[in-house]
Amino acid sequence: MPDQHFAEIVAFAHEAGHLKHTPRTGWLLGGVRNGESVAEHSFRVGVLAYVIAACEGADPERAATLGLFHDLPETRIGDVPSVGKKYITTTSPHEIVTDQTAGLPEDLRARIIAAVDEHESAKTPAATPESQCSRDADKLEALLQAREYQREGYTQLDEWVRSSAEAMTTATGKALAAAALDVSPGEWWGSFARAVGRG
Amino acid sequence: MPDQHFAEIVAFAHEAGHLKHTPRTGWLLGGVRNGESVAEHSFRVGVLAYVIAACEGADPERAATLGLFHDLPETRIGDVPSVGKKYITTTSPHEIVTDQTAGLPEDLRARIIAAVDEHESAKTPAATPESQCSRDADKLEALLQAREYQREGYTQLDEWVRSSAEAMTTATGKALAAAALDVSPGEWWGSFARAVGRG
Amino acid sequence: MPDQHFAEIVAFAHEAGHLKHTPRTGWLLGGVRNGESVAEHSFRVGVLAYVIAACEGADPERAATLGLFHDLPETRIGDVPSVGKKYITTTSPHEIVTDQTAGLPEDLRARIIAAVDEHESAKTPAATPESQCSRDADKLEALLQAREYQREGYTQLDEWVRSSAEAMTTATGKALAAAALDVSPGEWWGSFARAVGRG
Amino acid sequence: MPDQHFAEIVAFAHEAGHLKHTPRTGWLLGGVRNGESVAEHSFRVGVLAYVIAACEGADPERAATLGLFHDLPETRIGDVPSVGKKYITTTSPHEIVTDQTAGLPEDLRARIIAAVDEHESAKTPAATPESQCSRDADKLEALLQAREYQREGYTQLDEWVRSSAEAMTTATGKALAAAALDVSPGEWWGSFARAVGRG
Amino acid sequence: MPDQHFAEIVAFAHEAGHLKHTPRTGWLLGGVRNGESVAEHSFRVGVLAYVIAACEGADPERAATLGLFHDLPETRIGDVPSVGKKYITTTSPHEIVTDQTAGLPEDLRARIIAAVDEHESAKTPAATPESQCSRDADKLEALLQAREYQREGYTQLDEWVRSSAEAMTTATGKALAAAALDVSPGEWWGSFARAVGRG
Amino acid sequence: MPDQHFAEIVAFAHEAGHLKHTPRTGWLLGGVRNGESVAEHSFRVGVLAYVIAACEGADPERAATLGLFHDLPETRIGDVPSVGKKYITTTSPHEIVTDQTAGLPEDLRARIIAAVDEHESAKTPAATPESQCSRDADKLEALLQAREYQREGYTQLDEWVRSSAEAMTTATGKALAAAALDVSPGEWWGSFARAVGRG
Repeated sequence: MPDQHFAEIVAFAHEAGHLKHTPRTGWLLGGVRNGESVAEHSFRVGVLAYVIAACEGADPERAATLGLFHDLPETRIGDVPSVGKKYITTTSPHEIVTDQTAGLPEDLRARIIAAVDEHESAKTPAATPESQCSRDADKLEALLQAREYQREGYTQLDEWVRSSAEAMTTATGKALAAAALDVSPGEWWGSFARAVGRG
Repeated sequence: MPDQHFAEIVAFAHEAGHLKHTPRTGWLLGGVRNGESVAEHSFRVGVLAYVIAACEGADPERAATLGLFHDLPETRIGDVPSVGKKYITTTSPHEIVTDQTAGLPEDLRARIIAAVDEHESAKTPAATPESQCSRDADKLEALLQAREYQREGYTQLDEWVRSSAEAMTTATGKALAAAALDVSPGEWWGSFARAVGRG
Repeated sequence: MPDQHFAEIVAFAHEAGHLKHTPRTGWLLGGVRNGESVAEHSFRVGVLAYVIAACEGADPERAATLGLFHDLPETRIGDVPSVGKKYITTTSPHEIVTDQTAGLPEDLRARIIAAVDEHESAKTPAATPESQCSRDADKLEALLQAREYQREGYTQLDEWVRSSAEAMTTATGKALAAAALDVSPGEWWGSFARAVGRG
Repeated sequence: MPDQHFAEIVAFAHEAGHLKHTPRTGWLLGGVRNGESVAEHSFRVGVLAYVIAACEGADPERAATLGLFHDLPETRIGDVPSVGKKYITTTSPHEIVTDQTAGLPEDLRARIIAAVDEHESAKTPAATPESQCSRDADKLEALLQAREYQREGYTQLDEWVRSSAEAMTTATGKALAAAALDVSPGEWWGSFARAVGRG
Repeated sequence: MPDQHFAEIVAFAHEAGHLKHTPRTGWLLGGVRNGESVAEHSFRVGVLAYVIAACEGADPERAATLGLFHDLPETRIGDVPSVGKKYITTTSPHEIVTDQTAGLPEDLRARIIAAVDEHESAKTPAATPESQCSRDADKLEALLQAREYQREGYTQLDEWVRSSAEAMTTATGKALAAAALDVSPGEWWGSFARAVGRG
Repeated sequence: MPDQHFAEIVAFAHEAGHLKHTPRTGWLLGGVRNGESVAEHSFRVGVLAYVIAACEGADPERAATLGLFHDLPETRIGDVPSVGKKYITTTSPHEIVTDQTAGLPEDLRARIIAAVDEHESAKTPAATPESQCSRDADKLEALLQAREYQREGYTQLDEWVRSSAEAMTTATGKALAAAALDVSPGEWWGSFARAVGRG
């Protein structure tokens, strides 16, 4: 591989790192001033896509890959706020990721573009099972995060919980969204702490 | 799947989300007070593992999965600081992830434990190519992040850049670490901004 | 005035307050992770517009008003990042502010729309002197802020200083941009502290 | 204008920018640890002063100017906490702003001093209608901000809402404070989001 | 004293300063994302140890000293999260502080080691009254902080209040923990503000 | 002790905790936007006072106590910025701490007032050795913190280093200030990390 390719991959990796500094704008509307980054969201979307796909009998690693890469275009357009959708038109994720990967080795570039394209296909007739798992993971992640912020005291996030739950399309996604309404965000360490003492 | 499984998956997902609040302790030592979370780190480790594996001819989606899950045990032990290694003994990641996934459906549990185990195998004779890609991604991510913090003005991070570069084991990892020393963290938007104007 | 008008004004004021939580995205690109809000920027644009207009012989209070309101549409579209301009099309500020003020008393609504429109006219043949002062203030504010961040150690903001300086159109704006390159951001308290002791 | 004047204006603008880093101390008492800056407060005071003045038949641009500049002296004395008033004596805003503007061109200096003086006159027999609008805006801004923080979960801010409402002197200010008790801080985007979908 | 001793003391003081950047991990579990540092905690532990010892008839300055130094070993091992105790074994505070003070003058070193040792003795038959005051102060500080965070809206901290209260061993500690359940965290400024007006 | 005393002590402890939210204003002037709290400063002042007193042959626990309590009055007046001293007059720390401790048991109250008074005596003929150690610790702490911020990239803090060093009065304080100019803030973990590997 020519040296230039390595430099281009490094530049691409720095671009991906910008998602660490890209705020999820929905939380700002809900009053969460120091909310998560798109990178943090994408991390758990990847995890959830893996989990949902495993339950659905789809390919978990493929689904995790879709979840991991699905917000990559936001390095260039940010997380367009829902209140802005009436006023903003964006080019397709396909077009943006095609630009983002312009310097990469052809094979790698094609793979990343394909991953973004497949995630975007979730709402079309061409949807793959993995794209549906990844999209459900995207929505479920927001639902879980909303509940975690509610635990911190935020009072105006019910709409996020509700609309995220309604967006589920897979059987697993629907069941998880329903279960999430009954599981405390602190359940994992609460039960654990009770078992081992808190000292 | 019994209902209890969905509740357990939700609790597991909240636990994974705790990595959004788990600081990477190395940066605190280097003077970066509001540094990234383990979730942000894991996001880019997943992306880099994918990229390195694609260049190495390994399975990119498997490598991305290893990268995504590799720090999951840190929800329970935190990111043990390097200066603490003389004083702290931790049980194996295998043991922790076995506890973390105790309530999950068996098949899913086995998959996640296997992913953490495989990542950990990277320094052993049993290392798979994907584990080596994931481990190199872990180190390369720290190198890139150190350079991004240096751009912000931090003056004591040279050691992170150097030791991360030296830890590379794959040919691609070595080439990327070398290239990273010459690529500005802002190159991606600088060249882009020059092309389209900054307005 | 009907009661509903007061409720609508309150809702409008809460919307304006959202600019306190709207990050200036340019700084994120430059590596400033906890940068200023659009509200903080708008505050100093108002002050600078006043000052420039006073020096230019224009109406300072009109210019300050333009500066204060000019980013109001960003409550709905955010601060579109410069790297996104290739990919994002937004409706005009006029259209957005028309929506934002829909519930206000007619006279007040017309005034606010006119203020945003006048600021936007700065680059057109219909430019008023006050709109040119307000636009120069917008650019000069970014220049001063870039220099303040450079003082904190940020190393990649030269481009912001340069491009902001080049955007000046009024004689006062040009002279201030030139002077700014020689004045330390801490000059005001440094000279002051020397005069009264720091004790 | 002599070159020195431009340098002095730049130093003055950097001083005004310090309000971006000056915390509003009242919120700290109320438990809001990462609260707004004085610059953010001043931004919305300017907007509200404009709005109130328009409703009151006063000069909106004059009122906005008073609101914008009214806290300028806080670059030198900070936002003196209410609990400190028994223990702290400060010189008048007039004296401080006279020092702050010492290097500015005479005409500009006189204008800025006059703006601060006029705002301060609000509680005296010399009060102008615009000073009363600006002062009411100052109090109303705190009321709205308190309600926005309450939305985030803060539980001890009732006193801010109550005492701010009681401080109103104009008919518009009183009507807005009354209306504010019934309007949700998220009403603006809630109704908007319902209209266009949240997708 | 040889020059090297001064350099070693400075290095030791920088190490102590690292507690300003060491997060209290318990709050992260409870959902408090931007919580206090170990240094902030230690400050109030010192104050409370002084107060409790004065009430108990023990030596307040000795107790304050124990409280001030008790978490010093956390510069090297961090604040081990309660959920990690099953998985983490740490060497004794005695061993760590012995390393931390290796370069200090012998007399000073012995004093600091003795202070950490005495604090640690609180749960042993060798407990001194001052060590019990310092340990109660450590727990009471957490209780008060939990209540302060509850005031900010956090909803899952009851367990911290309860378990801290139960850990008290001195009569004063028990009485203060009981009293704390009835005193609002804002009582001090509320009553004060009412007395002098809030204007 | 009557129950009311316990409630008063709790309120006093909450007041002391407010120093966790009280910013050190000097750093804001120097461009450090998210700087330390007065509580964090006080923690290390206590530690340094102890160390200096031990080297000076004074009572280390007394000196630590003075350092711990010396900024207690700042809960009511904040950290008055150096640039404000021309404009602000404050009542004496004695008077403030007398109010702060009004509800405490008499003996405890007298002790705390005496500690603040003794610290304040450092610049008077009545200075005790411990008060001089505590005052030097206060200045040295600022010097060390300035150097730690410089490590993060801040460029305008030389004045803090210089003026703090000049303020030293004890032989130990002078020697430590001189040594501090040659010791890297990261020396403690750098040498340590080299010894045990950074892995």
